[in-house]
Amino acid sequence: MSIYVDNAATTKMSPAAMQAMLPYFDQIYGNPSSLHSEGQRAAEALAGARARIAARLGCQPREITFTSGGSEADTQALLSAAHLGARKGKWHIISTAFEHHAVLHTLEALERQGFSVTLLDVHENGLVTPEQVKAALRPDTCLVSVMYANNEIGTVQPIGEIGRVCREAGVLFHTDAVQAVGHLPIHVGELQVDLLSLSAHKVHGPKGVGALYARKGIPLESVIYGGAQERDRRAGTENLPAILGMAAALEESCAHMEERARTLTLLRERLIDGLSQIPHAVLNGDRARRLPGNVSFCFEGIEGESLLLLLDDRGIRASSGSACTSGSLDPSHVLLALGRPHEIAHGSLRLTLSHENTQEDVDAVIRAVTEVVAYLRSISPVWRDLTSGKTEFILKEAV
Amino acid sequence: MSIYVDNAATTKMSPAAMQAMLPYFDQIYGNPSSLHSEGQRAAEALAGARARIAARLGCQPREITFTSGGSEADTQALLSAAHLGARKGKWHIISTAFEHHAVLHTLEALERQGFSVTLLDVHENGLVTPEQVKAALRPDTCLVSVMYANNEIGTVQPIGEIGRVCREAGVLFHTDAVQAVGHLPIHVGELQVDLLSLSAHKVHGPKGVGALYARKGIPLESVIYGGAQERDRRAGTENLPAILGMAAALEESCAHMEERARTLTLLRERLIDGLSQIPHAVLNGDRARRLPGNVSFCFEGIEGESLLLLLDDRGIRASSGSACTSGSLDPSHVLLALGRPHEIAHGSLRLTLSHENTQEDVDAVIRAVTEVVAYLRSISPVWRDLTSGKTEFILKEAV
Repeated sequence: MSIYVDNAATTKMSPAAMQAMLPYFDQIYGNPSSLHSEGQRAAEALAGARARIAARLGCQPREITFTSGGSEADTQALLSAAHLGARKGKWHIISTAFEHHAVLHTLEALERQGFSVTLLDVHENGLVTPEQVKAALRPDTCLVSVMYANNEIGTVQPIGEIGRVCREAGVLFHTDAVQAVGHLPIHVGELQVDLLSLSAHKVHGPKGVGALYARKGIPLESVIYGGAQERDRRAGTENLPAILGMAAALEESCAHMEERARTLTLLRERLIDGLSQIPHAVLNGDRARRLPGNVSFCFEGIEGESLLLLLDDRGIRASSGSACTSGSLDPSHVLLALGRPHEIAHGSLRLTLSHENTQEDVDAVIRAVTEVVAYLRSISPVWRDLTSGKTEFILKEAV
Repeated sequence: MSIYVDNAATTKMSPAAMQAMLPYFDQIYGNPSSLHSEGQRAAEALAGARARIAARLGCQPREITFTSGGSEADTQALLSAAHLGARKGKWHIISTAFEHHAVLHTLEALERQGFSVTLLDVHENGLVTPEQVKAALRPDTCLVSVMYANNEIGTVQPIGEIGRVCREAGVLFHTDAVQAVGHLPIHVGELQVDLLSLSAHKVHGPKGVGALYARKGIPLESVIYGGAQERDRRAGTENLPAILGMAAALEESCAHMEERARTLTLLRERLIDGLSQIPHAVLNGDRARRLPGNVSFCFEGIEGESLLLLLDDRGIRASSGSACTSGSLDPSHVLLALGRPHEIAHGSLRLTLSHENTQEDVDAVIRAVTEVVAYLRSISPVWRDLTSGKTEFILKEAV
């Protein structure tokens, strides 16, 4: 038995995405930059995919730049917007403390270039407010970057309202929508975003491809030098099969979004209810304003890594937080940003559902987590100290 | 009928590469960074592919960094080596005038950062010599970058000898081997290179993936910020299917390299002989020291674009030069670097063969090019002026 509940790390490709890719490996394999008819067939397919993705986002095809993934899109968006700001003498950027590392590490690079960065507090519920953004704006602010949905705790930010604040202030607004795509409506006009990053493999599309929406008139600087592909905004032969796969995955997930969100929300609530029965446990992030399929918990007195490995033995593929940092011994920067103490943040579990998961999966996960947490606590010196009253619980019984 | 002779632009995926990729789309689809067993299966596959590619290059697996393609590998190699040099006070770089734009545009970016770049002359035969490199070395030279095989004219540089010159001088040496891979032996020790860029889609592997070899001890800076993938040298979820496809394509092409090179060389020579019958035509680049499948010609008195389109009507998919710049009206920088005048460089044709091409293909191409060149000349005012003696031929009758 295998229950995959790590869909925020990556997803299984859908048959539709697979079928969309296959012809472009060995049938329509020309280089879209080639003038001959094989190249032109490829160029037409590329234009078609771009138009379909643009239609889903409510933008013009020319506002879409294809990248190798979400990290490249984030890097390019932030570097481009910041350098545009700098040319106008604006060297201040606003973001949040729990962004993906693709954003945080780019901001660190920009700080080394002389930019000043304000990271907003995300509160215990993992939400920022438009008022916070407004209060942080300065005359020299050139860019605000707030993720649409968090990759670890799934909380959904009020992007449209933040977008309005930024637009009124004349400041560029970027959102990392990598986790939101396929789960939440993405219409760049309604969200009032200027830059938006996407990835395909979180939404049953292929790995190695993403897209950056940049509102018309915003110049993008490529992070990869070379040919004039993507209207000089991203060098390198276009990854046509993957781009077609992304278009299909995006369309499929958008077509089923509401129905899947309803089902996933029911499963999520069942899972949260079940895991809330475990003593000294806490849900990370706001319960309501979160992705339909995201459940994130901290359990006092255990190590997240041991929990994952024992769950894996029982066929359950889960995560402690972001896959991108799972080699690290440091606790999640997202959980620390919520104000969780180190010892609590270490005992984290992220369960991210897809439409392929069932109620039986959820019930099996609840049983397994309950048993494994109890077992790990039974052998934990930390837990013994807690229950004997030698040390004090941080998480109260009822949360 | 369709004869694809644009294999330097991109190639058809081989069945072996396809088969190697497929299981990683919807079976072994975990994120290699995930701790659970689905992630670990993916991580093992990633390690296996890395080891297989390293074995083909004669290096350690940890010396291989996977990228989204050749352009990213070139960008990363040059930025990393240059910045390493700058930290030691060395701000001079040597390269050639006919590198791929992934190298030339990165060098331009480095010039804006204060680096000084010497571009070596490639002579009329499209070859640089180790002596030229040696003569250009300065005490503040930190990097030499010379492509293994040129993407337009296919000339093969004496990389091993240039590598020896660089090693003796203690200067880092990078080669763009994107066009060489699968056609020429690549052993990083014998070539004495410190950095080497690869791409998969030029050698019947998938688009959207490449690799950068960096000798142990050379720190790489990622051009994409984010997670700690690739030992912190390249952020973003690894494109596992494409990496497995690249490993298979590389192994297959290496296994058949000698036999294919023999066949391709025969076809190439037949093609060169045939096209040399056309008056006022010249082969671009040294006839012997070129890729087995590369034929590049200039024809006086015609426009390369018209030639391509009429050949395409006859089912022949060819190129004027690099696909990456084919939107541009400027003549090829490679042909200008050979000393071809603008009006000659405009009349260029690149034919790049694969092992799937036959002698019948070659004969059909010779017939078609001969007829189309004659037709275009028959309607060309430039040609009328040349033949009436009003203007003088640049290319003599016999070349």
